[in-house]
Amino acid sequence: MNERFVFILQFFKSVGNVCFSADANLKYMPQISTKGRIMPPSPIRKLAPFAEQAKSQGVKVYHLNIGQPDLPTPFAGMEAVRNNRLSVVEYSHSMGNESLRRKLSEYYRGKGIHVDTNQIMITNGGSEAISMTMMACLNHYEDVIVPEPFYANYYGFSTVAGVGLKPLKSVIEQNFALPPVEELETLITPATRAIMICNPNNPTGYLYSRAELEKLAEIAVKHDLFLISDEVYREFCYDGNRHYSIMQIDGLEKHAVLIDSMSKRFSACGIRIGALVTRNRELMDTTLKFAQARLSPPSFGQILAEAALGSPPEYYEGVYNEYIERRNTLVNGLNSIPGVYSPMPKGAFYTMARLPVDDAEKFAQWILSDFRHERQTVMLAPGSGFYSTPGLGKDEVRLAYVINKTDIERAVECLRRALEIYPGRKK
Amino acid sequence: MNERFVFILQFFKSVGNVCFSADANLKYMPQISTKGRIMPPSPIRKLAPFAEQAKSQGVKVYHLNIGQPDLPTPFAGMEAVRNNRLSVVEYSHSMGNESLRRKLSEYYRGKGIHVDTNQIMITNGGSEAISMTMMACLNHYEDVIVPEPFYANYYGFSTVAGVGLKPLKSVIEQNFALPPVEELETLITPATRAIMICNPNNPTGYLYSRAELEKLAEIAVKHDLFLISDEVYREFCYDGNRHYSIMQIDGLEKHAVLIDSMSKRFSACGIRIGALVTRNRELMDTTLKFAQARLSPPSFGQILAEAALGSPPEYYEGVYNEYIERRNTLVNGLNSIPGVYSPMPKGAFYTMARLPVDDAEKFAQWILSDFRHERQTVMLAPGSGFYSTPGLGKDEVRLAYVINKTDIERAVECLRRALEIYPGRKK
Repeated sequence: MNERFVFILQFFKSVGNVCFSADANLKYMPQISTKGRIMPPSPIRKLAPFAEQAKSQGVKVYHLNIGQPDLPTPFAGMEAVRNNRLSVVEYSHSMGNESLRRKLSEYYRGKGIHVDTNQIMITNGGSEAISMTMMACLNHYEDVIVPEPFYANYYGFSTVAGVGLKPLKSVIEQNFALPPVEELETLITPATRAIMICNPNNPTGYLYSRAELEKLAEIAVKHDLFLISDEVYREFCYDGNRHYSIMQIDGLEKHAVLIDSMSKRFSACGIRIGALVTRNRELMDTTLKFAQARLSPPSFGQILAEAALGSPPEYYEGVYNEYIERRNTLVNGLNSIPGVYSPMPKGAFYTMARLPVDDAEKFAQWILSDFRHERQTVMLAPGSGFYSTPGLGKDEVRLAYVINKTDIERAVECLRRALEIYPGRKK
Repeated sequence: MNERFVFILQFFKSVGNVCFSADANLKYMPQISTKGRIMPPSPIRKLAPFAEQAKSQGVKVYHLNIGQPDLPTPFAGMEAVRNNRLSVVEYSHSMGNESLRRKLSEYYRGKGIHVDTNQIMITNGGSEAISMTMMACLNHYEDVIVPEPFYANYYGFSTVAGVGLKPLKSVIEQNFALPPVEELETLITPATRAIMICNPNNPTGYLYSRAELEKLAEIAVKHDLFLISDEVYREFCYDGNRHYSIMQIDGLEKHAVLIDSMSKRFSACGIRIGALVTRNRELMDTTLKFAQARLSPPSFGQILAEAALGSPPEYYEGVYNEYIERRNTLVNGLNSIPGVYSPMPKGAFYTMARLPVDDAEKFAQWILSDFRHERQTVMLAPGSGFYSTPGLGKDEVRLAYVINKTDIERAVECLRRALEIYPGRKK
């Protein structure tokens, strides 16, 4: 046992040395960990300095890079925070306030998902729910299969948890549909512990059918895998398509983990309130230990979320209609630009687009630093950050339709003009 | 390389199998990770079900187990939240709001710590600052030396980060003073990457002298180690003792990491606002990648903290005087109970006490479930959770003096009477 430990240690040191050898002057100071070195920067945020510089020059930047909606947070939620009469802002329960979990359980019941308050844990955004799930379900070096492209931060979370992220390729030409199930099964090895989907999908807008979910469930049960489903965009499914949750599939009591967040549903990304939902008692007991170590989720966010969950149907309808219009404006606009292709998303509020450029990251940087149209420009998220397979997504970008229709039209116009003169344009 | 990977995989599987073999019916379902299994439950919170049961029987429970102060959160902070005129609660910068970091930088300047806003990152409580620091500074299986007993959640954070926590023993008989430096140096191996202290200390109340800090700094530089200092109780140093920060020691620019939190300073544990402060640019760039993956710290907590940092000196003085009185009441009270010993803490708002019992955890559970004095009882945190050396702290408990003086007196009276009749009392 001891030799094994030493061996593993040496392995990590050798990995570390490879990373550090190029940087000789680091020798006499404490060194950053390998995990810290390989941790990917956020493709959504890494161009922020270029955007800030543009803004400092008085340029208007349209943020299509980040899913930060401009729609108002529900008034009832805001009022609950404003009218709070707390004198001490105490820790809450590590699982989150019982009253919020009860409200959430009612919300789920309305969606056909039956879970009680002990099967719901409130987290610091959906982000923490994913991190905790990965840590509780996978050992180091085991892997989770994720359809690719995927939400870029999954890659970060898997790096944090020290687990592998095995991509199941989906392609823009087929509008990012899941490949045949057989292809998924060829990816499963003895080190595979989970399948994780985002439904509807960030970044592709893909919506899984009930039949697809049942297929995934069958595979999960057959191979003893956790099936993790990030459903934070549940409310946003378009064109008459209905959302199905993995929590509605029978026989997955031990396998299914639902990831949720209030950020997008309520235009309240800053409250940092998400949820981890599972009927697997042992898994919940385990994630509770992680939750106890970090003490509790934020109090005011919980107050806001609880009140917002009481929003009337008109709130959801208003938001929904707005996103449909924005989606159509953006995607039709993109497809009207010569050489650009974007599939019409069935859900969420993102789309992937293929651009006629040498390198979408270079383009995304160039448009911020070197391009202006009537003192305006656009911020995009380079596509390669949403793939783990090297080379994929190089000519793609992710765009979020979370700004108003007029601004989307202006942003599309910027893109059109930028692509006309971009030096790295592909013919 | 590939064989190494397979070998490591097998190692983890074998560890997993040992854990799982006792539970035969787990064979055909996905299994919890080893990390999830070995993750320690919080010793501070794990007796909560017994406390809840007592309360449900109409029993008053005095919470000496948890550092949840009952003092009011600064009014200015509460008003800033109540008067917010946000319409959308947006993500903030991953580093936290610039305005909050500026305020914090001014606060530090007042303490003789000179750092600019780019050297401060706002985190989800001090907890996240510690997790991120460990992940950025240590590889898996490398270790951090921590004086023992230590804040119990350090053990959880090190488990999350997959790093070893190497205890530097300090003992109650010597009022938890650091052992001679030579002893610390014998713990350093090629796998050691950091030393971490809590100053003033949770759970012991120990306050490090400037000379001790300089010694630690010398060792950190000599051995290329990070020196991590958790200073969240900075404002609470008693008996004329002054607080020194590792950020005030020259020559530690690359080595020093300051962990901070607003929770205790402002009786606002629920806002989840902490900070990671370092002058090591590479380290800050690395932790920023972790911060970007989880997007941003909570918005309302940042608003509250920023306003609370403008609290007048009277706020700090009032809180300070209150804690001194509570400390004296608790510690003198404890020492008046036959067989109990607690050193007088020099800082923070905790103390460790040795009890004349067979097993402090059994006692802490018994006093919640089987003991009542005038329909009252006490919740304690068993000491062993604050040690990683097996067997240590078995007859100790940690107590927080965060409830009012009268309640502390009543809690001490409960303890006195409970120890008189506890079946496992040691003579």
